[in-house]
Amino acid sequence: MSRIALPSLQAKVMSAEAAAALIDPASTVGMSGFTGSGYPKAVPLALAKRIEAAHAAGDPFRLRVWTGASTGPELDGALAKADGIEFRLPYNSDPIARDKINRGEMDYFDMHLSQVAPMAWQGFLGPLDTAIIEVSGIRADGSLIPSSSVGNNKTWIDRASKVILEVNRWQNPALEGMHDIYYGTALPPNRVPIPLTRPDQRIGEPYFRCDPSKVVAVVETDSPDRNLPFDAPGEDHKAIAGHLLEFFRHEVAKGRLPSSLLPLQSGVGNIANAVMSGLVDGPFDNMTAYTEVLQDGMLELMEAGKLLTASATAFSLSPEAAATLNADMHRFRDRLVLRPQEISNHPEVIRRLGCIAMNGMIEADIHGAVNSTHLMGSRIQNGIGGSGDFARNAYVSIFMAPSTAKGGKISTIVPKTPHVDHINQDVQILVTEQGLADLRGLSPRQRAELIIENCSHPDYRPALKDYLARARRDSYGQQSPTLLTEAFAWHQRFVETGDMRPK
Amino acid sequence: MSRIALPSLQAKVMSAEAAAALIDPASTVGMSGFTGSGYPKAVPLALAKRIEAAHAAGDPFRLRVWTGASTGPELDGALAKADGIEFRLPYNSDPIARDKINRGEMDYFDMHLSQVAPMAWQGFLGPLDTAIIEVSGIRADGSLIPSSSVGNNKTWIDRASKVILEVNRWQNPALEGMHDIYYGTALPPNRVPIPLTRPDQRIGEPYFRCDPSKVVAVVETDSPDRNLPFDAPGEDHKAIAGHLLEFFRHEVAKGRLPSSLLPLQSGVGNIANAVMSGLVDGPFDNMTAYTEVLQDGMLELMEAGKLLTASATAFSLSPEAAATLNADMHRFRDRLVLRPQEISNHPEVIRRLGCIAMNGMIEADIHGAVNSTHLMGSRIQNGIGGSGDFARNAYVSIFMAPSTAKGGKISTIVPKTPHVDHINQDVQILVTEQGLADLRGLSPRQRAELIIENCSHPDYRPALKDYLARARRDSYGQQSPTLLTEAFAWHQRFVETGDMRPK
Repeated sequence: MSRIALPSLQAKVMSAEAAAALIDPASTVGMSGFTGSGYPKAVPLALAKRIEAAHAAGDPFRLRVWTGASTGPELDGALAKADGIEFRLPYNSDPIARDKINRGEMDYFDMHLSQVAPMAWQGFLGPLDTAIIEVSGIRADGSLIPSSSVGNNKTWIDRASKVILEVNRWQNPALEGMHDIYYGTALPPNRVPIPLTRPDQRIGEPYFRCDPSKVVAVVETDSPDRNLPFDAPGEDHKAIAGHLLEFFRHEVAKGRLPSSLLPLQSGVGNIANAVMSGLVDGPFDNMTAYTEVLQDGMLELMEAGKLLTASATAFSLSPEAAATLNADMHRFRDRLVLRPQEISNHPEVIRRLGCIAMNGMIEADIHGAVNSTHLMGSRIQNGIGGSGDFARNAYVSIFMAPSTAKGGKISTIVPKTPHVDHINQDVQILVTEQGLADLRGLSPRQRAELIIENCSHPDYRPALKDYLARARRDSYGQQSPTLLTEAFAWHQRFVETGDMRPK
Repeated sequence: MSRIALPSLQAKVMSAEAAAALIDPASTVGMSGFTGSGYPKAVPLALAKRIEAAHAAGDPFRLRVWTGASTGPELDGALAKADGIEFRLPYNSDPIARDKINRGEMDYFDMHLSQVAPMAWQGFLGPLDTAIIEVSGIRADGSLIPSSSVGNNKTWIDRASKVILEVNRWQNPALEGMHDIYYGTALPPNRVPIPLTRPDQRIGEPYFRCDPSKVVAVVETDSPDRNLPFDAPGEDHKAIAGHLLEFFRHEVAKGRLPSSLLPLQSGVGNIANAVMSGLVDGPFDNMTAYTEVLQDGMLELMEAGKLLTASATAFSLSPEAAATLNADMHRFRDRLVLRPQEISNHPEVIRRLGCIAMNGMIEADIHGAVNSTHLMGSRIQNGIGGSGDFARNAYVSIFMAPSTAKGGKISTIVPKTPHVDHINQDVQILVTEQGLADLRGLSPRQRAELIIENCSHPDYRPALKDYLARARRDSYGQQSPTLLTEAFAWHQRFVETGDMRPK
């Protein structure tokens, strides 16, 4: 059965190459896609070929590319390889694009994910020429059944001058009805409260509205999402999960958290996934999640009967979990909601719900400022993503990572981080496999002692203690003791020798 | 006429000394007060004397002190001088307390002002033993008429085991009815939308609820707020205001701001005040303000018929403006609203209203990260206050300062700031007397060029350009070009020589 129920759009079915030919060489393109789910899989590849051909002929062809967050190799990878991206927002995790960015060959505006859609409406990002959106189907009234991520698709469809749709037959038809597309946003002074008070609440409609006359092409595909396997949790990850569970137990015992905890937010990646797995065996029941992406661990938690409902903007599953979900979609469907990222990450909703935010980090300094994005202060890894939306507004804001990286050559706890994504006010709990530091209500000097003692690796702890002792003697001021001349010495040593440790 | 209409509380009137005697030597005290308005003026002084006597007798006496924000010398100054503060939150601008903090003799937890009340309810800050609250009067039903600031008073009264009231006859009786105390907050999972959609809207009640049985003392006072004169705007401040007005005109012309602008938020201080004064002669009418404090400039703007209404949590006026306001309270009263700071600074409301946030800064780095709090990375000046609440959630987030300080010995634009309060995602517009940099939608490398060109002082500009050129050649990564070995060289030179400029 065709997934295109509207004849006028059935008539616009064409090849990916024909659709790619409709895109102007210096234009702005808004694509679907969030952490490897629901991104267009055919038109960007065809577009990359067209760009390569143009460049071979000596013609310029570089786009401004907007998405939900990261996508797949068929989008960021192919376009970056073709040198077809001049400017990228709001997030990237593609290795080829990352290299271009870090060589200074591509401009990258790394954004709070909640702000992408409202800033696009504000207008200073410029016009959006073409939206390229993967959907699961087109209904007879022209409305669109979303795919495995929602991201900024609503906004791209509304803002773009023309729309190209990829209808992906690989996506499960049972996704229909799972989405909640809220059309109540506006520009000030016309904004009103977002009426969401529970993670499972539906405040919108299950489809995207789309004016069929804006649709210039429909491309049919049958391609899987980029579902990557998760690593089995390592010992470090299990230790981190253990410390966190102990903290939650303590907070429940103190009466500071309900026994069902509060809506969980969990960043993307193996540690976050390990924490979710750890909760399967924990004492907490009737949990909920209000988060960005649904990973394997959350589905596990749901299968174990621990997690009642989960709200996100995208799936980010391993191939096995995707297969489980697709096979048992009926069991999960009513307990999952996918929303636009401006709602999944909205500060208003996050603060109201009181999320428990759990995010990874590259490093933290002794006063608790966290770097989530830049290696050695200058080379971007991925981006801030939704961590700023959640951390500042969370009921409890947690950052976690193993205490060392690169086989011990990098310390996660450093005297000072040369890039800050989360200021110390937004970092309440730090966790490494060494232990947990509860920084709530402490001054920077108190934080420094606790972070070094509880979180740093023993190979680096004496040097950190020595640094702090000397900073407490010699620093210009004592609110946040700092030695300017050696604050970045460890990072510089790594740049020069590949190892933060002194020879 | 007595301002204490409830006989049972009239019966609790006593001297400040007798009231101070009711406070335990190792307890936590929540005081009223926000930027020199509405803080208790008698009991803290008596408390300081008691502490000095205890210390002279060899007895320990150090308090944990919570307030709205800064207070007056009779509170922070007197208690710090007596060495009576062990721990302070959420903000301080008192010079004696500042010195103690920067010598490492007092712990200071510098907080986002919107988070103080909810975090006090969360419980991890510990119990609140005594609230000491200035009010304008006590009504027959025991409810309290707030004074010239609201701050966290509602929460202190609700949370404290015992309450001491200072009834200040100096406060204008016409303040009654100006306040809007919202009692709809809760801990999650019971939080609901805050129903505020316009700056002038009232969503609460004009009085504090207070159980009279918790009141252990009432002290009558007749003392002025600490109203400090504003400096007449200097040439630099006028130039900053001029650049900002030009930017607003441009945004209105582009259709990106309405001609009445959007609700103005303006930080505390002379520059902010100069911008308000500049708007008196600007082309914008029917403006509104949703801000933390009402300064002289806002009243001027209101008197000029340009500003319709203003919402804040406190007044912060010069003695002249306070006299004008007191004389003409009837003209201003219906157009001003004072709210709890958890509402005046609430991210939910700020983002909904789309505030134009204008805040001062100590320094900004070439990528646009802003330091609002720490001199040379370690010595705290005041605190982050509400700047983080407003900057991250604003429709337009502006930071401003003259391009140099200390007669040219300090550059406001530096290669890297050794303390970050506002990450570059939260800094959209930078303004100095040299010019304005519109950083919206730009990558860090693009931002660096624009900031140096438009905002830095000519005495430092060549050195910044040279740094950037070398960083673009030698940096580990090119997303945010950085030279780790000299990132803080200017700050270190200042620490050593008192001048950032090379000899």
